[in-house]
Amino acid sequence: MCALRLIVANKNYSSWSFRPWIALKVKGIEFEEVFSQFNEETGHKHFGEFSPTKKVPVLQDDEISVWESLAILEYLAEKFPEANLWPKDIKDRALARCIAHEMHGGFMSLRSECPMNMRRAEEAISVSDGVYKDVKRIIDIWRDCLEVSGGPFLFGAFSNADAMFAPVVNRIAKYKLSDDPIVVRYSFVMTNLPAWQEWETAGKAEPWIVEEDEA
Amino acid sequence: MCALRLIVANKNYSSWSFRPWIALKVKGIEFEEVFSQFNEETGHKHFGEFSPTKKVPVLQDDEISVWESLAILEYLAEKFPEANLWPKDIKDRALARCIAHEMHGGFMSLRSECPMNMRRAEEAISVSDGVYKDVKRIIDIWRDCLEVSGGPFLFGAFSNADAMFAPVVNRIAKYKLSDDPIVVRYSFVMTNLPAWQEWETAGKAEPWIVEEDEA
Repeated sequence: MCALRLIVANKNYSSWSFRPWIALKVKGIEFEEVFSQFNEETGHKHFGEFSPTKKVPVLQDDEISVWESLAILEYLAEKFPEANLWPKDIKDRALARCIAHEMHGGFMSLRSECPMNMRRAEEAISVSDGVYKDVKRIIDIWRDCLEVSGGPFLFGAFSNADAMFAPVVNRIAKYKLSDDPIVVRYSFVMTNLPAWQEWETAGKAEPWIVEEDEA
Repeated sequence: MCALRLIVANKNYSSWSFRPWIALKVKGIEFEEVFSQFNEETGHKHFGEFSPTKKVPVLQDDEISVWESLAILEYLAEKFPEANLWPKDIKDRALARCIAHEMHGGFMSLRSECPMNMRRAEEAISVSDGVYKDVKRIIDIWRDCLEVSGGPFLFGAFSNADAMFAPVVNRIAKYKLSDDPIVVRYSFVMTNLPAWQEWETAGKAEPWIVEEDEA
């Protein structure tokens, strides 16, 4: 019996679900995965049964319910300190939160024009200058972190910062947005995680097509 | 000599600067306020000298630099545990982070159509349905929190959650978006904080007009 339940949507497209899911898997934290399908006819209204924002992911821990992916990652970091979901050093931790929050509230062009899509063939599309500006900033972040930490992850060991950027690794690859050596290096590390491959394999096997996410 | 420096933009419009500023002031944490004016000719490019996102606020603590307002609030909560910037109870803290993150990443209609503006006369404008949907969700959040905590703030004592919603109090009033009793009650408490009044008075006295924020 596992007290921790993570409610996620499909694995092919649901980038916000992917973030806490991969953090839990990489850190070996036991949880029950609960799948709640997007409903094309009723929209996401049924998500209102467990989520005040009608969005997923939602983490349930007995009577505690946590929505918003980064709030879930903060909750997990507090609940499982031995997992070191944030870097131990105060300066590194501050930086990790800065870039996690940049990802949470920003990169709107990339997020809207290039949806995460595990199943998609790698193929360039026409994108706005805003997408390239977003990708440039993301590469700068990854470079700065990896140069200081030495890798393989942004702060050495896998942290919440990596969880937040996981869907971006997919986006840059699928829409062929950059072949910068930093992207190649970091993407190799991320996509070779067993947790990544478990999610990707499951996503590719899903039958559902969400037209608005097929750019 | 104060090690903590908060770089903010003008007080009339800069809602993101207001959030960590009011948290610092309410909790009596000593800091040096550094003013960095928006520059209409060069945009915010000079912000790049101290901010990798070219945005404010930025908190500097000796060699540590923190951007992104909610990352700053997390940093302050860790650095000054006695200030109780997050609620002590784990369930309350999880909820406080959920709603803080909702504010950070959402309410886009309200944020884009109704800019914070301390100087503005209270006057309704034509807004989209999205704004009313945002305001409804915000009132639900405030009601749920105040009913459980008993007030005066969302979790009893002032917390980072109140800091995150402070600019919304101004927006709802200035654009006459709601006279729900919960809004009246919470706005009374927030706008009577000496810290609020210090910020508002300074904002009203500023000479700068930012046309795009004059809805």
